[in-house]
Amino acid sequence: MQAIEVFPSSNDEANLQLNADGSLRHLLTLKGLDKSLLVELLDDAERFVSPVERDTARSQSLRGRTVANLFFEPSTRTRASFDLAAKRLGADVLNLDVNTSSRKKGESILDMIYTLQAMHVDIMVIRDASAGVPAYIAQHVNDYVSILNAGEADVSHPTQGLLDLLTIRQRKGRFEDLTVAIVGDIRHSRVARSTAEGLQTLGVGELRLISPPALAPYADEMPFASVLDNLDDGLRDADVVMALRIQRERIGNLEGIPGIDEYFQNFGISSERLQIAAPDAMVMHPGPMNRGIEIESTLADSPASAITQQVANGVAVRMAVLECVCKAMESR
Amino acid sequence: MQAIEVFPSSNDEANLQLNADGSLRHLLTLKGLDKSLLVELLDDAERFVSPVERDTARSQSLRGRTVANLFFEPSTRTRASFDLAAKRLGADVLNLDVNTSSRKKGESILDMIYTLQAMHVDIMVIRDASAGVPAYIAQHVNDYVSILNAGEADVSHPTQGLLDLLTIRQRKGRFEDLTVAIVGDIRHSRVARSTAEGLQTLGVGELRLISPPALAPYADEMPFASVLDNLDDGLRDADVVMALRIQRERIGNLEGIPGIDEYFQNFGISSERLQIAAPDAMVMHPGPMNRGIEIESTLADSPASAITQQVANGVAVRMAVLECVCKAMESR
Amino acid sequence: MQAIEVFPSSNDEANLQLNADGSLRHLLTLKGLDKSLLVELLDDAERFVSPVERDTARSQSLRGRTVANLFFEPSTRTRASFDLAAKRLGADVLNLDVNTSSRKKGESILDMIYTLQAMHVDIMVIRDASAGVPAYIAQHVNDYVSILNAGEADVSHPTQGLLDLLTIRQRKGRFEDLTVAIVGDIRHSRVARSTAEGLQTLGVGELRLISPPALAPYADEMPFASVLDNLDDGLRDADVVMALRIQRERIGNLEGIPGIDEYFQNFGISSERLQIAAPDAMVMHPGPMNRGIEIESTLADSPASAITQQVANGVAVRMAVLECVCKAMESR
Repeated sequence: MQAIEVFPSSNDEANLQLNADGSLRHLLTLKGLDKSLLVELLDDAERFVSPVERDTARSQSLRGRTVANLFFEPSTRTRASFDLAAKRLGADVLNLDVNTSSRKKGESILDMIYTLQAMHVDIMVIRDASAGVPAYIAQHVNDYVSILNAGEADVSHPTQGLLDLLTIRQRKGRFEDLTVAIVGDIRHSRVARSTAEGLQTLGVGELRLISPPALAPYADEMPFASVLDNLDDGLRDADVVMALRIQRERIGNLEGIPGIDEYFQNFGISSERLQIAAPDAMVMHPGPMNRGIEIESTLADSPASAITQQVANGVAVRMAVLECVCKAMESR
Repeated sequence: MQAIEVFPSSNDEANLQLNADGSLRHLLTLKGLDKSLLVELLDDAERFVSPVERDTARSQSLRGRTVANLFFEPSTRTRASFDLAAKRLGADVLNLDVNTSSRKKGESILDMIYTLQAMHVDIMVIRDASAGVPAYIAQHVNDYVSILNAGEADVSHPTQGLLDLLTIRQRKGRFEDLTVAIVGDIRHSRVARSTAEGLQTLGVGELRLISPPALAPYADEMPFASVLDNLDDGLRDADVVMALRIQRERIGNLEGIPGIDEYFQNFGISSERLQIAAPDAMVMHPGPMNRGIEIESTLADSPASAITQQVANGVAVRMAVLECVCKAMESR
Repeated sequence: MQAIEVFPSSNDEANLQLNADGSLRHLLTLKGLDKSLLVELLDDAERFVSPVERDTARSQSLRGRTVANLFFEPSTRTRASFDLAAKRLGADVLNLDVNTSSRKKGESILDMIYTLQAMHVDIMVIRDASAGVPAYIAQHVNDYVSILNAGEADVSHPTQGLLDLLTIRQRKGRFEDLTVAIVGDIRHSRVARSTAEGLQTLGVGELRLISPPALAPYADEMPFASVLDNLDDGLRDADVVMALRIQRERIGNLEGIPGIDEYFQNFGISSERLQIAAPDAMVMHPGPMNRGIEIESTLADSPASAITQQVANGVAVRMAVLECVCKAMESR
């Protein structure tokens, strides 16, 4: 969450990402995007969802456009998801996996960005381990380039947030009276932050963040959520339970959680544990899972689990976002 | 050849790879595929062969399909061959070179596979250093996904086998009365196994496997072949001579073969050595070659050599297999 | 500049790259290409230049063709530029980043080339750290393959040369009475060599090469240019000033230049320093820049700078070259 000095967090990131007419220019964060825009994106994404036994949804709406996937942090699934989303819209795709070690300071990121925009790259999909990088880039590109955040430090992962919202809406049909429990390493999770921000905007009934104290959100960070350190309290009557990935090396350093077994015992989501939640509770995980650590393996594969549905929605959401910024580009 | 516990070799791999109507669902191994199916694949591949001075064969039969090349073992030529085959059929291609070090156990392979199938990947091309991985994956994918084995440990490399069969058929026009000699490191060669299996099904006259004793096939592994350790005996009147790549580090550990010169002396294929074979003997090598070790450099470039023809056939065979599993998909 | 024994520099490289009718077969070097051909390529490239606010220039003239980017030396921008150029002409593109450590000797490069041409690759874009590799490959491919040099040791980088020429022509409209100053590490710069060769052919008024003595060109290497070690002498009344990238580790080893500050002081291009040049002098850099070392950061972003224009022209020039060798292929 600490912003590196050279990439100051923008206070008006929300404004930065909208055109004068309110359409989407960049997607940097869900924070500050209003409900109607989120609903529009989810509706758009729905058009790109198709069951696995039917043809893949496609269009040619990005024909003649160039999308660059600029990943300064390694990724297989998010990169693949953006890659397929862009190709299925007819775009040319440039995949650049850039070693951050060759990147010393902000200026050289900008020089890479200026190079890509001079090459007529229309959309840059950025993943970076430093806070503020996508907004910093968005502040510097010309009027014809859109920036999409594909994962920013611990701060934000807006397309993941959107796919979570879409998956919940598909299964539950509403947000107003839902209780959503997000469990695990909240502190270091860009997924938790983006999903929580989106849920708040869509008016979720109750949002609970459950974690060991050392992994709780920062104080006052998400005042709209209740912060808990007891899993049963957090799961009680919950409609949606989302387990977060925990980095194994963090576990040994948690007070009272010396090992994997203890972590699973205290914060792992299992069928048995889930009985305290609502009878039709759905289970989510952003992937990749540590089966048996943050989630019971059989539960992950059960009908209650929406995990592969999340992945499928990920492509659809990214297609919707790509198409949305392209449309806005054309009307500028 | 040792199967890792977590990836048990399937006894009915052959059945696993066929649909109920006998059409090809997955391509995991040539073992157990019947003659009519092999001949059909070779005939299909022939349509995609075109001389270098003519236009490249293409079609749009995979338009709207997604092919993922999932290579857990590094590869340049096989990956390039599948990549071009898929693109020339109009597919979208996702290239994933995955470091196996990030893969701890079977479950996480499956999670990657489930992720890809949720993204509407239709065909997964898998290369892996562990035995049983392609079949293990094939057992777990949904009804709408086909798995193609692009190299599996020492066990199997079925598209390489098919391209060898096609090349022999193009040059010799028949299999029945042919004598084929495969020379070199048989024990560790997935190429030798797949080619041998295909030759047996197509009714090759005689198959000889020639190697230093330490690199011979396992006992009773290929009862239809004769196993020899003397090159002249193996080459006598042979119509087809296939040299295998040997890993240099193996040479020093072979009894009686302390160095490269000795290896070439005893098991290298040269023009001079080839005089004992049939007058019109053809020479093959799966590549990449160690020139001067398993094959004489000038011989590799001579008219007797079919080595570049094998490469050209590789793309054609992969196009045929991709099209074949796609057609079967559509009629399911 | 030293040619490795196995890749002897071709004395008739210039002839090697032309078809019998004088059309372009390979692009290996600008040396020896005549003025009319250079002008034709620049004119062709001009058709592919479009301002960033307008649609990207595209065509389908490489539809059905396969371009392989075979980079034995790492590259982000040149690879991206060729990748986009080929895709925007409708080609299938195969990207191969090949670790040179796996390449022991010339033969195995050729085997890789033979493999690619057997796969019906039409155009191979080669970058290599050894002198002579592109010409060596061009001497060995069949009649249906074109080789494009994308950076060869310290020797040559012809598409960079062409994009520099195009950028100068766009800004200055002529070459005859221009004074061009190239500043920095001339000795190790393939960019300087290619640009200088092109400028000479197009009849530049005066060409000055300015560097610390240790980084001067080899004696008699470019007799048409004046070699200077004083920046002010070099910049005086210059119309075009091109700063070259210097590798930081070289700086400490230069006599009289113990550090970055001294280098910038003596050979860095700044607005202040530029006052000695012509009033409308343009500034160039092949990128990636070391801002504050070879060029002042604010100058690089000023209207005098043509640096992003160079990048945009890079894609256009590569599209022109790809189309040019393809047309020549079809009429062979």
